[in-house]
Amino acid sequence: MFVAINYIKCQEHYRERFEELFASRAGAIDRMPGFRNLRVLKPSSAEDPYLIVSEWEAQEHFEAWKGSPEFLEGHKRGFEDMRRFREEGKEPPMSSDFKVYEVIAT
Amino acid sequence: MFVAINYIKCQEHYRERFEELFASRAGAIDRMPGFRNLRVLKPSSAEDPYLIVSEWEAQEHFEAWKGSPEFLEGHKRGFEDMRRFREEGKEPPMSSDFKVYEVIAT
Repeated sequence: MFVAINYIKCQEHYRERFEELFASRAGAIDRMPGFRNLRVLKPSSAEDPYLIVSEWEAQEHFEAWKGSPEFLEGHKRGFEDMRRFREEGKEPPMSSDFKVYEVIAT
Repeated sequence: MFVAINYIKCQEHYRERFEELFASRAGAIDRMPGFRNLRVLKPSSAEDPYLIVSEWEAQEHFEAWKGSPEFLEGHKRGFEDMRRFREEGKEPPMSSDFKVYEVIAT
């Protein structure tokens, strides 16, 4: 089993929108082969990043998703937000950092 | 739903033992009310910490576990290792940092 975590630093003014995007997510990732589940984790301390945790049967399934139309579909509204901020000459409201993990015990 | 993550920095020389402890874990936490599942995540980069991810129905279940005999039972061999290093005047082979999260979307 394989886990990918996207560590997302989100600016204060964008948090409500960010949480709303995930609460109403398209579910595109759920259709990918090898996908097991997704958890969106809100930290108890606002200093810490949000964690988007996805479980997969194997790393190849995660890599296939990153290059898929479903990846673009699932991130459509977020990517549009980022583009709008950029066009308005503003700092991006969030930044993301993927890390990958092998599940060595359950 | 509630998630706790223990971020564990583990020294190079202790990693094999650390992984073995989890591979052969007692399963004490599994008996706790409100416990859902556990994942031990090994990072792809040795610079990053291991993540011990536990899912619970609610935070109160996690807090009850931290004060339980099952917590001591589950950490018995690890705690003994730490004590031995301390008695030999050596640096502890690992350090841990719990962070807690609310699951806001799945």
